[in-house]
Amino acid sequence: MSHLDAVLARIDADVDAAMARLFGFLAIPSISTDPQHAADCRKAADWLVSELATLGVSATSNPTAGHPIVTANVAGSSTRHALFYGHYDVQPVDPLDQWETPPFAPVIATLPDGRKAIRARGSSDDKGQIMTFIEACRAWKSVAGSLPIGITFLIEGEEEDGSQSLSDFLASHGSELKADIALVCDTGLWDQQTPCINTTLRGIVYEEVTIKCADFDLHSGVYGGAARNPVNLLAKIIADLHDDQGRVTLRDFYKGVPETPPHILEEWRALDLSPEKFLGPVGLAIPAGEKGRMVIEMIQSRPTCDVNGIIGGYTGVGAKTVIAAEASAKISFRLVGHQDPDAIRDAFQAHVRARLPADCTADFISHKGSKAITLPFDMPDLVAAKAALKDEWGVAAVTIGSGGSIPVIGEFKTALGLDSLLIGFALDDDRIHSPNEKYDVRSFHKGIRSWARILAALAA
Amino acid sequence: MSHLDAVLARIDADVDAAMARLFGFLAIPSISTDPQHAADCRKAADWLVSELATLGVSATSNPTAGHPIVTANVAGSSTRHALFYGHYDVQPVDPLDQWETPPFAPVIATLPDGRKAIRARGSSDDKGQIMTFIEACRAWKSVAGSLPIGITFLIEGEEEDGSQSLSDFLASHGSELKADIALVCDTGLWDQQTPCINTTLRGIVYEEVTIKCADFDLHSGVYGGAARNPVNLLAKIIADLHDDQGRVTLRDFYKGVPETPPHILEEWRALDLSPEKFLGPVGLAIPAGEKGRMVIEMIQSRPTCDVNGIIGGYTGVGAKTVIAAEASAKISFRLVGHQDPDAIRDAFQAHVRARLPADCTADFISHKGSKAITLPFDMPDLVAAKAALKDEWGVAAVTIGSGGSIPVIGEFKTALGLDSLLIGFALDDDRIHSPNEKYDVRSFHKGIRSWARILAALAA
Repeated sequence: MSHLDAVLARIDADVDAAMARLFGFLAIPSISTDPQHAADCRKAADWLVSELATLGVSATSNPTAGHPIVTANVAGSSTRHALFYGHYDVQPVDPLDQWETPPFAPVIATLPDGRKAIRARGSSDDKGQIMTFIEACRAWKSVAGSLPIGITFLIEGEEEDGSQSLSDFLASHGSELKADIALVCDTGLWDQQTPCINTTLRGIVYEEVTIKCADFDLHSGVYGGAARNPVNLLAKIIADLHDDQGRVTLRDFYKGVPETPPHILEEWRALDLSPEKFLGPVGLAIPAGEKGRMVIEMIQSRPTCDVNGIIGGYTGVGAKTVIAAEASAKISFRLVGHQDPDAIRDAFQAHVRARLPADCTADFISHKGSKAITLPFDMPDLVAAKAALKDEWGVAAVTIGSGGSIPVIGEFKTALGLDSLLIGFALDDDRIHSPNEKYDVRSFHKGIRSWARILAALAA
Repeated sequence: MSHLDAVLARIDADVDAAMARLFGFLAIPSISTDPQHAADCRKAADWLVSELATLGVSATSNPTAGHPIVTANVAGSSTRHALFYGHYDVQPVDPLDQWETPPFAPVIATLPDGRKAIRARGSSDDKGQIMTFIEACRAWKSVAGSLPIGITFLIEGEEEDGSQSLSDFLASHGSELKADIALVCDTGLWDQQTPCINTTLRGIVYEEVTIKCADFDLHSGVYGGAARNPVNLLAKIIADLHDDQGRVTLRDFYKGVPETPPHILEEWRALDLSPEKFLGPVGLAIPAGEKGRMVIEMIQSRPTCDVNGIIGGYTGVGAKTVIAAEASAKISFRLVGHQDPDAIRDAFQAHVRARLPADCTADFISHKGSKAITLPFDMPDLVAAKAALKDEWGVAAVTIGSGGSIPVIGEFKTALGLDSLLIGFALDDDRIHSPNEKYDVRSFHKGIRSWARILAALAA
């Protein structure tokens, strides 16, 4: 019996005890955004320190301006080293009356289709996921006496509140956080049968623009036809952001946007993410993006432009015949590949100014942008982790992109020089951030087994 | 001393008391579009009934499905009879923080050029203007014991909300509203020195459209690129309403739009309403209408399309990465000549539907529209009123068109067979519909004197 086989057997034998340990973690209401739960956040950090001690890992709860960051360092039996990142804080629980059982009293629930699931706030996001990794480490330590690779644990308590303290911590503790790769367990499976690694995250540029025309609101009867209307003008500016093929028209917008390699497109095509499957559940049917692209490209490998909000003129009940003095919109761009947020911000502002009559002005508020994150598809650690996941799940892991942005991944790259493997076992129906959050027992059990295999694979 | 001279002297002696009466009227927040102010609208109607009683005029506040309509009937010393129309309702007051003094606490303000003005919501539109007529009647009654002509008062409370109840009222009370001519005091002077009678009014079509896409708000990271964004879609629909020559693109939109005769265009050119003169006071410089047209054409003889309000997505402080489920706009068209409001409404709805993907919907709220109005230039009452205005102001009254729409004028013609004389004393800088609405004290005083003269002139 190889070490790995013994480790997997050990995990199977220990899964009920592992679940009991997780329940203790889930019972702590570590809601980071609510100052009343600051002590609970400290308690969750202390719980992790104690829990890691049971593995023989000496951890520290590091105070910050916000909630503590837990760190620990363990040598491995190879020279390879990974930084493991997760977060012990959870979302608020309101509306409380929609929970079938209290959010911090974890239970095993049976879902309508017979699946067993752990129901509690944080079960999926992210305490259950953290524990898949820690339990995998426990099994390795207990069977082999050491981990296949060295691990630095970095578990924060402000992920649901903008990770406010993490940047400073990375800057001041960079030398203690050195590693070859980051492992992040805060994402999901492709579906119940199929594991998945997120290899790209879109970046973002987010601009607010206010168009100002007349000095004050005008009567549309008296001035209509002669006075510039900022809402009409803003509509024109927005409409001009796309051409009739669904492409964004900003100058050099597609500079740095890579074409996805044909074999990856093939993989994606095989996933069969039809418009009905992706858009049906939200009441839509027709993909809105670039003509000739699959839905999965539109949300993963192609940049976008969306208006996130617009307001101008009279918006109350009934009719008011006014020409507003100003109108505003919040407009964001999701970026991929090597698109440069600063260049795109400049191009957007130039696009607006080019459409502005000389007697009107535009004011901008620029929110912090981020570049997209892309892992090389042929990176050895990625290839190794994919193989390990296939061994566990029996089907190839899909490598997909995430349409959203996880700022900490960008910080690992810029502050620590680390690429990140985003591997998780959540499911789309886990109701994260909602009442009755759950984590499938199978996700938990196979998640532990998956990490046990990945730790071995990364050592090789 | 003739009756008229005595009446004018009486007006001069009584002007401060008249202003005090107006202040009482202005203190009532009779905002017709806001259901929370329904009681205030009833209060304003009751105030008029009491006020007319002080003239010895017995008035009635007639309940309607909306706000009450005040009517009264007074015989005159001649057989001539006029219907006087005004409205006691006012526009909403937002944005409230831009008012220098509270909108319903009237004050006498001194303008930068030294003019005295009454500042309050409704001071110019239309409470101050109504009171110029009532105070002229009061002076006639007090000096001569009776009015030179018979008057039927018709003062409604839904003008700023589409005059919803008025049609039914005209239909059911037509026999009580018989007259030779309608007098309407809801328009302006040409400039501070020059009186004016409006002989044309633009019509209006006012539509609200709500575009619905997804069933609920979506995360723009997860769905951005694939999910239809109703704000972007609405922006495209709005932008497509104009071509690059400033013309409205709706099918058959210009059907029934007459070309102004060359000699009238010559007259208008002589008025020298330059872009600087018309747009400068509101902070603009470049006419926004059809290329190749004078400003005076843009606001009087050409139809328009303006967005009066738009809202969708997140409009609070900061960034939220949301794709809204829906977005709405209020869009109005000013009509001229023989343009057909129903046909234009249909063309607008068709324009929207033609741009709607099959998985999105558009809901419409159609406000009551009106056709444009044109008076014969040689009508005797018009000639008499022009002469009376010249007597008061010392310069000839100009006969122009109005860019605004007063739907009721069309109804007076169709339901009662009445032509309307549109005579008012507002100024372009009165900020009607805006914060800090005002009415010059001189407008109020000379307005009362003007009506006193016109009542005499119409009797002759």
